[in-house]
Amino acid sequence: MEFEPPLVGCIVSNRDYSFGLLKATRECSLNIPTVELAEKVVAVGNCSGRDTDKFKLAGLTAKPAKLVAAPLVAECYAILECRVADTRLVNRYGLLILEVVQAWVDTAVKQPRPLHHRGWGEFMVAGERIKLVSGMMWRRCLRPPQR
Amino acid sequence: MEFEPPLVGCIVSNRDYSFGLLKATRECSLNIPTVELAEKVVAVGNCSGRDTDKFKLAGLTAKPAKLVAAPLVAECYAILECRVADTRLVNRYGLLILEVVQAWVDTAVKQPRPLHHRGWGEFMVAGERIKLVSGMMWRRCLRPPQR
Repeated sequence: MEFEPPLVGCIVSNRDYSFGLLKATRECSLNIPTVELAEKVVAVGNCSGRDTDKFKLAGLTAKPAKLVAAPLVAECYAILECRVADTRLVNRYGLLILEVVQAWVDTAVKQPRPLHHRGWGEFMVAGERIKLVSGMMWRRCLRPPQR
Repeated sequence: MEFEPPLVGCIVSNRDYSFGLLKATRECSLNIPTVELAEKVVAVGNCSGRDTDKFKLAGLTAKPAKLVAAPLVAECYAILECRVADTRLVNRYGLLILEVVQAWVDTAVKQPRPLHHRGWGEFMVAGERIKLVSGMMWRRCLRPPQR
């Protein structure tokens, strides 16, 4: 939602176990998996932390965060440590506005392929990257751009 | 942001010409292009409706909407006609909550490849679709799932 400070809008159902934890602790980590973890993503998405140790179920590794109490998922490509910044639209829409206070990325992964859930068990996998340079010429990028 | 009624959260900078139009009319259309339109997307994204006819500049076709006054972009794969439903976070974050009142899709396009802007002229093109069926078996979907 914003670059400076970095803000992420996140909808969480008040029926989810995460919702109560977020209201109580006002902290979380957002763990971004790539396609290699898809089966584990589905497994942890189809059970609840109320009665299941998701890390154990899926064979994922919890590791400590730097700035928040919530654990990080070590296998994920990128991770955002977040604090809840605004709760004005929580009751109406379940919308939490999170401020990213620490970000991690696995720099060994050169071509990450994150997942986008489309519902009904279907995911879109991120595809090729294209770059439009000045003069509107096309160029395919084999690597992330140097910024 | 929600399924029923369908809500979309949309951040619009108050420096954009669209921002004033949205505040005044409280209506818009969201026009979703695929990769074939990428050059036109960049062209219309790098000028302002204040002083430019974007349809003319990019060779795109305006067509009337069914329920809103804003025009639709005929070449787009999918189009959402929207009314502004909530402006509580507009001043703080530029966040408009839009209710989709009419949706269109080009059913002739079987494998749409929409674009995701990554900044700095770079886009991620939607890639393959995967489906995880029960028993956690993988299956590649050549077509959208029958819902």
